[in-house]
Amino acid sequence: MENGEKNFNVRGNEKLIGSSDTAIRGVLALLKDNVDQSMQKPMIVLGHGDPTSFSGFRTTQVAEEAVIEALKSAQYNCYAPTVGLLSARGAVAEYLSRDLPYKLSSTNVHITSGCAHAIEIILMVLARPGANILLPKPGFPYYDARAEFSEIEIRHYDLISDRGWEINLDQVEALADDNTAAMVVINPGNPCGSVYSYQHLEQVAMTAQLLGIPIIADEVYDHLTFGSNPFVPMGVFASLAPVFTLGSISKRWLAPGWRLGWLAICDPARNFQGNTIDDCIKGCFNIVSGPPTFIQGAIPQILENTREEFFSDINAKLKECAGIAYSKIQEIPWLTCPLKPEGSMFLMVRLNLGMFEDVADDMDFCLKLAREEALILLPGFVMGMKNWLRITFAAELSALQDGIGRIKSFCVRHSLAAAH
Amino acid sequence: MENGEKNFNVRGNEKLIGSSDTAIRGVLALLKDNVDQSMQKPMIVLGHGDPTSFSGFRTTQVAEEAVIEALKSAQYNCYAPTVGLLSARGAVAEYLSRDLPYKLSSTNVHITSGCAHAIEIILMVLARPGANILLPKPGFPYYDARAEFSEIEIRHYDLISDRGWEINLDQVEALADDNTAAMVVINPGNPCGSVYSYQHLEQVAMTAQLLGIPIIADEVYDHLTFGSNPFVPMGVFASLAPVFTLGSISKRWLAPGWRLGWLAICDPARNFQGNTIDDCIKGCFNIVSGPPTFIQGAIPQILENTREEFFSDINAKLKECAGIAYSKIQEIPWLTCPLKPEGSMFLMVRLNLGMFEDVADDMDFCLKLAREEALILLPGFVMGMKNWLRITFAAELSALQDGIGRIKSFCVRHSLAAAH
Repeated sequence: MENGEKNFNVRGNEKLIGSSDTAIRGVLALLKDNVDQSMQKPMIVLGHGDPTSFSGFRTTQVAEEAVIEALKSAQYNCYAPTVGLLSARGAVAEYLSRDLPYKLSSTNVHITSGCAHAIEIILMVLARPGANILLPKPGFPYYDARAEFSEIEIRHYDLISDRGWEINLDQVEALADDNTAAMVVINPGNPCGSVYSYQHLEQVAMTAQLLGIPIIADEVYDHLTFGSNPFVPMGVFASLAPVFTLGSISKRWLAPGWRLGWLAICDPARNFQGNTIDDCIKGCFNIVSGPPTFIQGAIPQILENTREEFFSDINAKLKECAGIAYSKIQEIPWLTCPLKPEGSMFLMVRLNLGMFEDVADDMDFCLKLAREEALILLPGFVMGMKNWLRITFAAELSALQDGIGRIKSFCVRHSLAAAH
Repeated sequence: MENGEKNFNVRGNEKLIGSSDTAIRGVLALLKDNVDQSMQKPMIVLGHGDPTSFSGFRTTQVAEEAVIEALKSAQYNCYAPTVGLLSARGAVAEYLSRDLPYKLSSTNVHITSGCAHAIEIILMVLARPGANILLPKPGFPYYDARAEFSEIEIRHYDLISDRGWEINLDQVEALADDNTAAMVVINPGNPCGSVYSYQHLEQVAMTAQLLGIPIIADEVYDHLTFGSNPFVPMGVFASLAPVFTLGSISKRWLAPGWRLGWLAICDPARNFQGNTIDDCIKGCFNIVSGPPTFIQGAIPQILENTREEFFSDINAKLKECAGIAYSKIQEIPWLTCPLKPEGSMFLMVRLNLGMFEDVADDMDFCLKLAREEALILLPGFVMGMKNWLRITFAAELSALQDGIGRIKSFCVRHSLAAAH
């Protein structure tokens, strides 16, 4: 070693630096900073999947009380097993099995810190050298960020906007090869509000079977459906191709801040038998930090005792919001929405850029909208869809109507016609 | 693509597989499996840093009530900012600043899912290609596992058993080079129960300054001290070398299952200014999953309102346990304990293997002890100290005394002399 003071020229892992620019929360934070604080208008955020700031979207008391009871019992101040409390794993297995033609056992379920954590873990597990992964476009950029960090090659397949955002399966077939570790299917759809039919999901599973690749089924919006297609879990078809089911209580229970999710392995045909996937998952849970034990302790009660009315009320509310959002957007010719949403909390609209006088692209639109109208939307480039927007309809109706009204005012003001 | 069914020969990331064998929890689980269930004796676990199963080690009601209040307010069901709630960051900054000669601000603090999560994050951040890290031996194997996973080269420096487990600073100097990303200092000490003096910590900081490397100060056992040395945070010396302070409420508040920790940057001399560390940390928090918002919401009350009596009671209890454990172990000639513990929850003892008839090594000792005495201790090899044991003294006194009695019986039974 040289002697003398050094200047601590410590460099970090540069792979981490870019991630802020494309993370949903990074972009939303940037847009919020752009809101003119001196404006009279209150800020409206229709940019993320978290309606809990609106009074109409409060979680059920059953869930709150279950957590309080678990905490007060003092039985759950201890560390939990790395893969989760057995009672929580069993309760999630039971919950998921209600909609499956076979029974999951507690050993198939691993408890995670929300669905994002399940994404982290499954991508850590699948990141063997040379691996690639098939991700939907548009999709959820957390997959892209984690895959990139884990050095998994990303291959995007398209969702087809004029076919209800169904998966382009021909493209999936063309993209897959022997190094494809999995394909990700998000249903109900974020960001498109689509809900896939039984038939389409079966086709997806048959394609995965043909290709010999497992499916990562992101079902964080499970059961949040209100159109013609009911929610069908991908696990229904797991005898064709094994499924990693990712879920959480974040959306259906309106508790995203509780950070309680799961990673379930649906493999009734035992396609994973004899390979290293189970060992890798177990090993991975040894080097990550799981969710609080007392919230895990509340899971059996939360999953078993929540009343059906809570769920149906939320879905009715979401259906009303989706309908109003869709019809009001139809009245704005500067935007095109290819699908009336049937699930989740979002819809996607295309910006008809040629109709604007001074809007360069989706980010420019969102930045100006934030500044002039104190309205926050998510620009599509974050999801790989330049010049589209993701709009959250899961909001108090008054805020939603006010928000879409602001979009219209903005479009009128920036219209090509208006300028002449 | 070939047609026809494939057999889903999916391989996982094999880097993850070994981790179970050396993880503390993996080894403890294996030992517990070895306990003879038909035995009359109740199992006693003195293998981990979690005394919460003993009634004398319950967290304070102040903390429980703060969490319940935050939950009931429904203000914290939402997602938190990636780096943590501003109020929680501010409260931790205030808490840590009480013991520092300068003030940390909320922007210096990041909220994590327990201290383990802070370890994950700082090692992800420091994992630039070619980096190495200096870890204590004995130490906390989670560092080794995460460093290995992040492909950071591990270089162990020794703690000197007959110098109160102080750091061998000559060795630190010899091991460091221009690719050394940091040195890890765990104080109060896990697994040795050591508490470093002001003078020793200052020497550590001066060495780090000389070498131009930052210090990762693992202070998860902060303030759990009951010997001659008071707890001095490494951050006191951060003007010499920048310090990443890792901590949590897990140990001092007896709430390891709550998973609430922090990563604070102590850099009053602004040695990190102009480099990429801050950006890497910010980017890293974009791709990890943080702790529940409502627990974060409770942090200001927990840190500010916990009564001094709660802390002093716990320390008095730990002091009594440590004293009794140490003196009873002195009566077992098969074991040597170089230091009467002055902090944390552990002590280290060396197995005098030559005195045993049929004990091959530390793991063999622990396996046989589990089977014959239903007592769980942690074998030293997990911490890089073959033929040592880590014993937790943070336990109900009766269990502790019973446990050490079982060790003695076991040693007598397996003694070389006894066989002849």
